[in-house]
Amino acid sequence: MPTTAPSSFRFARRTERLRPSAIREILKATELPDVISFAGGLPAPELFPVDDFARAAQEVLSEDRSSAMQYSTTEGYPPLRQWVCEHLAEAVNLRCSPEQILITNGSQQALDLVAKVLIDPGDIVLVENPAYLGALQAFDAYEANVVGVRSDDAGIDTFDLRRVIAQCPQKPKLLYLIPNFQNPTGVSMSLERRSEVAKIAAEQGIPILEDDPYGRLRYAGSEQPAIAALPQTRNCIYTGTSSKIMAPGMRVAWLVVPEAEVYEKLIPAKQAADLHTSTFTQRIVWRYARRPGVLEAHIKILLESYRRRRDAMLESLTEHMPQGCTWTHPDGGLFLWVRVPESIDTLDLLRAATARKVAFVPGQPFWVGGNVHNTMRLNFSNATEQKIREGIRRLGEALAQLAQSPAAVSV
Amino acid sequence: MPTTAPSSFRFARRTERLRPSAIREILKATELPDVISFAGGLPAPELFPVDDFARAAQEVLSEDRSSAMQYSTTEGYPPLRQWVCEHLAEAVNLRCSPEQILITNGSQQALDLVAKVLIDPGDIVLVENPAYLGALQAFDAYEANVVGVRSDDAGIDTFDLRRVIAQCPQKPKLLYLIPNFQNPTGVSMSLERRSEVAKIAAEQGIPILEDDPYGRLRYAGSEQPAIAALPQTRNCIYTGTSSKIMAPGMRVAWLVVPEAEVYEKLIPAKQAADLHTSTFTQRIVWRYARRPGVLEAHIKILLESYRRRRDAMLESLTEHMPQGCTWTHPDGGLFLWVRVPESIDTLDLLRAATARKVAFVPGQPFWVGGNVHNTMRLNFSNATEQKIREGIRRLGEALAQLAQSPAAVSV
Repeated sequence: MPTTAPSSFRFARRTERLRPSAIREILKATELPDVISFAGGLPAPELFPVDDFARAAQEVLSEDRSSAMQYSTTEGYPPLRQWVCEHLAEAVNLRCSPEQILITNGSQQALDLVAKVLIDPGDIVLVENPAYLGALQAFDAYEANVVGVRSDDAGIDTFDLRRVIAQCPQKPKLLYLIPNFQNPTGVSMSLERRSEVAKIAAEQGIPILEDDPYGRLRYAGSEQPAIAALPQTRNCIYTGTSSKIMAPGMRVAWLVVPEAEVYEKLIPAKQAADLHTSTFTQRIVWRYARRPGVLEAHIKILLESYRRRRDAMLESLTEHMPQGCTWTHPDGGLFLWVRVPESIDTLDLLRAATARKVAFVPGQPFWVGGNVHNTMRLNFSNATEQKIREGIRRLGEALAQLAQSPAAVSV
Repeated sequence: MPTTAPSSFRFARRTERLRPSAIREILKATELPDVISFAGGLPAPELFPVDDFARAAQEVLSEDRSSAMQYSTTEGYPPLRQWVCEHLAEAVNLRCSPEQILITNGSQQALDLVAKVLIDPGDIVLVENPAYLGALQAFDAYEANVVGVRSDDAGIDTFDLRRVIAQCPQKPKLLYLIPNFQNPTGVSMSLERRSEVAKIAAEQGIPILEDDPYGRLRYAGSEQPAIAALPQTRNCIYTGTSSKIMAPGMRVAWLVVPEAEVYEKLIPAKQAADLHTSTFTQRIVWRYARRPGVLEAHIKILLESYRRRRDAMLESLTEHMPQGCTWTHPDGGLFLWVRVPESIDTLDLLRAATARKVAFVPGQPFWVGGNVHNTMRLNFSNATEQKIREGIRRLGEALAQLAQSPAAVSV
C-alpha cells in the first residue's frame, strides 16, 4: 500500500483536541512485566470469574445459538435491559424501566453518545476538578468548553458550583459527576452534597450526567443513593457498567435515560456510531448476572481483596511518603490521589519512578485549566499487597531523591 | 425516576440530522415471524458457524483466560491485526502491515471514526447515488455536506464525478465508495472504473474511503482488486468486516490506514468513542479465522446458498414483476435494487406489501438530493428460496393492485 504519496487528508478541527498524550508514551515504557504499575485503572485479572463466564458463553452458544451471532437492536438485549433495572433498584435505589435503558459499548461510549446529542462546539460542560480523563476526551471530541469546579473531600464544592454557574457566559449544557469514589481522586460525595448539587442543577436547569462505574466497590462507610434517584433531581442521565464488577473486556455498559425525548436522540446517535453493542457479549453478561447469588458472591470477593489492597497502600504511604505529601482515603473504588510538595513535578517523579520500575499517572492531565503539576493518581486494584508495599517504598525513594536534586533525574 | 419534570436538555445541532426514520417505524410492523422480509441486510442465521464459534470461545476462555476479559489496547488484538493483513493480501491483493490496522466495533464504527477525524460541519463528502444509509447517517452526525454522484451498472460514473468535483464550492474532504456489490444497488465497479476513479481522486487530491463488507461474497464474474491496492491510488482508507463472512453479532471489523498521521488521529478518536473493541470477541474471531481452511470452507457454504437465493429472486422477479419494472443483476453481496414505474411510490407499495406480509426497504432514504420515490432495495440472503419465490409473488400482486388503484391502499 503506498504510504509515501503526498497526503491529501485534511483533518477536522476537533482532532486538534484529540492528541496522543505524552504521558501515554512514557507509560508505554512501564508496561513491562517487571514494573509495578499503579498507572492503569485495571481490575485484578486473577479475580475475574473466568469459569462462570465460560459457563455463560457455553449456555449462550448452546441455547441461543444463531441469535447470539446475528445483528440485534440498537437499544440492547431486552433481558439484559430488564436485569439492569432490577440491579439498579437494589444497588442504588434507582427506579427505571427497560425502555429507559440503552446498552453501550462500555461506559466510555455512554459518555460519547451523551456528548454527541448535547454538545455543540463551545458549549459549556461543568466537571469536578480534577476530572476523569476519559470524560474530558469524550467532551473534547465535540469541542466542548469544559469548565472545572473546585472539589474537596466530599466531592464537588457547591459554593464554587454556584459561583462558576453565575460566571458562565452562557448556561452550561451539562454537569458531569462521578459521585462514588471518583476517578482520579477516590473521593465520594456525601448525601448532603448530592442533594445540594441536585437542587442547584434543578434550579438552574442544568442536566446532570452521573457516571457510576465504581459504586458497588465500597470498602467502608454506608451506601449512598444515586443522584438520579434523589427527589430533588430533575433531568439526570445515569451510566453504569459491568466492567468493574464483571469484566471490562466484554464492553457492556448501560445508560439510564429518564426522558423519552433524549432517549430517542440517543438511538440514532448509537446507530450512526456502531449500530449496536455485541449481541454475544450482552447475552453472556446477562446469563452470568441472572444466576441468583453469583454476581453478589463475586462482588464480595472483589471487596475483600480490594479493601486489603487499599489498606496496604494507605499504610505504605504513611510509612514511605516524605513530609509534605497528602493523599485521599477512599471508601471504595480503584484509585487514590496524592499531592506532593509544590517543588516537585510528578512528571519528573514519573521518570525517576520508572527508573525504579514503578509507575503511576501524573495528575496534570486530569486538571481542567490551571497548571497543577504536583499531584498523581495511584491505582490499588491491580497489584498484590506485597507489590503495593514494595512499589510505594520505591516511590518514596524516588520522591526523596527528587526532593534532594530535582534536576538530576530529568531526562 | 422523575420523568415529568420540565426538560432542561438542549440538543446539539447535529441531532437535527439524526432523526428516527419513518420507514424504520413501518418496518417494525414487518418484524413478525410470519412476514417474509427482504428488508434487512441480515446474513442467513441458519448458516452461522455456531459450533466452530463455540469451540473458539471455549479455547479463548480456557487458554487466554483472564486476558480475554481485561481491558486491552485501542488498536486491537495484535494476532487479529496480523491475520487481517494476511487475509487482505490473499483476498483483495491489498498489502499492509499490522501497524496500519485498527480494529473497530463493526464497520459502522469505522465509518464513524473516519468521519470524526476528517469532517467539519459543511465539509463535502462525495458518495455514489444512491448510497449506503449507514454511511449517510455517520456523515450526517458530523454535519457533512453529502453530495451524490451518478452511478450506473458499473458503479460510480467517472464523467459525473469530474463534473461534480468541478462544481463543488470547496475541495471535497472524502470520496466514499462500496466498489463490490454496493449497498443498496448490488452493483460492482469494473476494474477500468476503479482505476479511473483512483486516478481522478489522486489528481484532485481527494482521499477515498473504500468500504468492502461484501467483497468475499461473489457468485459470478471475476475477483477485482481493492481500489486501495491499485497502483494509481493515493490516500485510500479501506474498511472490511467479519460480519458478513462470520457473524455480525461479534462486532469485529477493521480499518486499513496507510498513513501513520491519519492512524494516529484515529487512535484517540476511538479511545474517546469506546476505548477499544471487545477483547473477548476479537480473540474469538481470531481463533476461528486462524484455523486452516475453516473460514474458506464456511465462505464456500455461504456462496452456494446465497447464489441460489439470488438466482431464485432474479427468476421470480422475471416471473412476477409487471411491465415497466427493472432491476440490477448483482454478481455478489446481499442486495438487489428494483425500479418500478414512476407512477408508483414505493412507500405506498410498502404499505400494500405489508398487508400481504412481505417487506422491503423503499429506496428514497438512500438517495442523496432529488426525490426519487420509485426504487426499492431487496435483500436475498435472509430467506429461503421458497420464501423468496412466495415473497416476490406477493410483491408482484401488491404492485399490480397499486398500478390499478394507487389511492386505495394509502393509509
